[in-house]
This record gives sequence, C-alpha cells and structure tokens, in this order.
Amino acid sequence: MGYSESHIEGRNAVIEAIKSGKTIDKIFILDGCQDGPILTIKREAKKSDALIKYVSKERLDEISPTGRHQGVIAVTAAYEYADVDDILKNAEDKGEKPFIFLLDGIEDPHNLGAIIRTAHQAGAHGVIIPKNRAVGLTSTVARTSAGALNYIPVAKVTNLSQTIEELKKKNIWFVCADMDGQVMYDIDLKGAIGLVIGNEGEGVSRLVREKCDFRASIPMKGQIDSLNASVAAGILAYEIVRQNRS
Amino acid sequence: MGYSESHIEGRNAVIEAIKSGKTIDKIFILDGCQDGPILTIKREAKKSDALIKYVSKERLDEISPTGRHQGVIAVTAAYEYADVDDILKNAEDKGEKPFIFLLDGIEDPHNLGAIIRTAHQAGAHGVIIPKNRAVGLTSTVARTSAGALNYIPVAKVTNLSQTIEELKKKNIWFVCADMDGQVMYDIDLKGAIGLVIGNEGEGVSRLVREKCDFRASIPMKGQIDSLNASVAAGILAYEIVRQNRS
Repeated sequence: MGYSESHIEGRNAVIEAIKSGKTIDKIFILDGCQDGPILTIKREAKKSDALIKYVSKERLDEISPTGRHQGVIAVTAAYEYADVDDILKNAEDKGEKPFIFLLDGIEDPHNLGAIIRTAHQAGAHGVIIPKNRAVGLTSTVARTSAGALNYIPVAKVTNLSQTIEELKKKNIWFVCADMDGQVMYDIDLKGAIGLVIGNEGEGVSRLVREKCDFRASIPMKGQIDSLNASVAAGILAYEIVRQNRS
Repeated sequence: MGYSESHIEGRNAVIEAIKSGKTIDKIFILDGCQDGPILTIKREAKKSDALIKYVSKERLDEISPTGRHQGVIAVTAAYEYADVDDILKNAEDKGEKPFIFLLDGIEDPHNLGAIIRTAHQAGAHGVIIPKNRAVGLTSTVARTSAGALNYIPVAKVTNLSQTIEELKKKNIWFVCADMDGQVMYDIDLKGAIGLVIGNEGEGVSRLVREKCDFRASIPMKGQIDSLNASVAAGILAYEIVRQNRS
C-alpha cells in the first residue's frame, strides 16, 4: 500500500495536521458525525481548501491503514501544490511562452504520475489539476512521475473552466483532446498554449471543452475507442513540441 | 488479483494444462524438486516453449492464489499468441506496408497493455515480444489493452535480434527508441517499419540495438532521465503515423 504514508488518522492527528499547514487533499469523515472535534476539523478544512467526503464506517475501515481512524482520515499530498502564478512565473523565468497541461479529472494515480513526467520532459511549465473528482499528489503519483514532481509545479484549482478563462486573458490558447476534433497535425499549436486532457473514461467535460479554442484528435485506425490517457497526453504534447521546434 | 484466473496450480492440473495445448507463459517450480511428475512437467514444458523458473517455497506461496500449489504453478496466457507470419499476413491483407512493434523486455503488464492498445490504434499490424525477461499476455495486460488484444496479433519469439534479422530480408526497416539517438523528427520513418521499444529500466539491449537501422530519440527538456515506456512508444508510433500520412 504505497498510499499509507500519506494517510493521517484520528481526530487530534488530523486537527494538528491541518493547523501545521500540511497540504491535505481530502478528509474522509464518518457520515453523521457531528461532535466538537469533527466540527473543528470541518471548519479548519474549509479554510485550507481540502475536500471533505462523508463516508460509511465500512468505507473508512477499508481506507484505514491501522483501523484506528476514530471517524476521520485525512489524505495528505505527498508534495506541496503550487499556484497558477508559479507556473506562469516559471515560463517567464525561462524566457519561454507558457506551455501548460490542464488535467480535467484524471483519476488513476499512475496516469497522473506519467503525465507529470511527460509534461516535465516535454518542457511544459506546469500542470493544473482540479480539486474535485481527481486524484491528488499522492505518493503513488510521486513515484510514477519518476522524480518529475520535484521539478515541475502542479497547481490545484477549484474551477478548471474559470482558470482557463483567466489564462486566456494572458493570451494563452487552449487545445483539448477530443476524438471528434480536428486532426492534431492540421491545427496550429505554436506559441503560448494550454493542453487539456480529459478523464480516463469520459474525456474532457463539456464546460471545459467549450472554453477551448481548438479540439484536437489523434488519428486512430483501430476498432476500439481511445488511447490510454497518459499516452494520448504524450502524443499531443509532442505534436506541440514538434510544431514549436521550427 | 486480476492475475489469479491465469494461474494453474498443482502437478496434475499443470500436466493436464500443458497436454491440452493451453498456451503457458511460465512455470514456477519449487527449487530442488526432482520427482516424477515434476520431471514430466519439465519435459512437456520444453516442448511447448514455456519458460521454467525455479523459485523458493516462500515465492511460490506468494504467487499462489489458493496456497495449494504442490511445488508447481503455471501461468497461462490470457490470450493466444500469433506467429510473426500472421503479422505479415495482416499487413498484406490490408494492402499496407508492415508496421510492427517489437518490445525488448517490457516487464510491467500495464505498460504492455497500453502499448498493445497504442499499436492497434496507430494502425500497426502486430506486436512482437520476447519469450524471456518480459511479461506475457496475462489478464492484466488484456484488461489494460482495453480490448485491443482481440484485434491485433501478438507473437512471442525466442530471439528478438534474430527475428529482426529475418524481417530485414523482407525490406522492413528498424528504428529503436534510444536517448542518444538522432532526434526522431529528423529521421525518415516512412514505409515498412519495425519500431523497437526497450525495457522500462534499461532501454533497448545492445544486441537488438545493433540490428536497428536507426536510433531515434524523443527530445527531452526535463531534468529526469526518460519517459514512461508506453508514453515513449506512443510518441514514436505517432511520429511514424505522421510521416506516413503525407
């Protein structure tokens, strides 16, 4: 269980972790629990932007590495999150036009790790992930990124389409992976760009897709639906690298 | 345990499986075991081309889904293997120049599955894997391939560099992924081609690399070593797709 190191269990331990400023991704709370310490945890969690999930006792027992959760388990990020501004500054410091990955709901930690690795190797300046319905920077993600997490900033935002809206004002263009889009080789992907990759099963959500300037498809000859999300991200990223090369 | 369905345990069960012609990838035998049934298994296994591995009792207990292995566990392929000729025929039937993936020792079943999926989607005619030091077509591979295993032939060969030598006589060119190679965009990858992808940790082995006509590198800007093997395979495969498009 590569995850266990990033679980904090028990009321006091969780309260202390929040107060110490540890980056917490999610807090699982026993559904119906309303006592003093739990209310404190909920209040503090809101300030720190952590996602709260109410779950059954069975689910808590399942998640718990030790079985002594006392109705609450916090999942901490194995790495610290950056801000979107850190990503823009990273590009500026290098004197390059921003190249950003935006991941619309990647759920598999191996995919997230592989995509962060690819983003770093392709020369992207940062990765943006949403707070909800997505895996955070767990230890599995860190391991799968093969060290890339130490070098590339990853920011977590509440609303991905709003973030896109704001970044557009800075003259960044957005392209999303979309099987029904235009073939990627025929799209001009040069300059400041945000590459949007969707969820493993459902692709890019409608709201996010509608914010994008281009919808790019990878030509597929096979009889199945799609490619693995991290493979698709790699192929699209390197089409951007190729076009910006000349 | 997605694997358990492809394990056969116990002497009689394994002997029967071999005799029935089931495709067996590997047989784990308790180190030092030399009795009659085990000798029969070893003899039959040799005929069927299965790989034999001698392991400790602890390792056998670990692999065993039921604990009743009696000193022998056979790992069957979840899918049937094809021949190299099936792959060439697949290309011929489609009236296309052969496009083949050769995997030099992929060990992670998720990587193998993702690469088979990519090969199918990129329009390759088959995948060739080596018998030794590589994962076979387990149920995890089948699942990760997202159905692609039903459509694309996968052949298993004893000696990958010998297979390359033979395919060269059919005017197929070979390019391998190599970090020290020429940048992929600058290599002519048109026509009949074999794409060679190396092991996750060590890359393409020297013997296989020396048989290749080209060594292609993916440009990397990051401070870490490499990309995930299935991502690298996808990026190189689609550079081949792009070049053959025009």
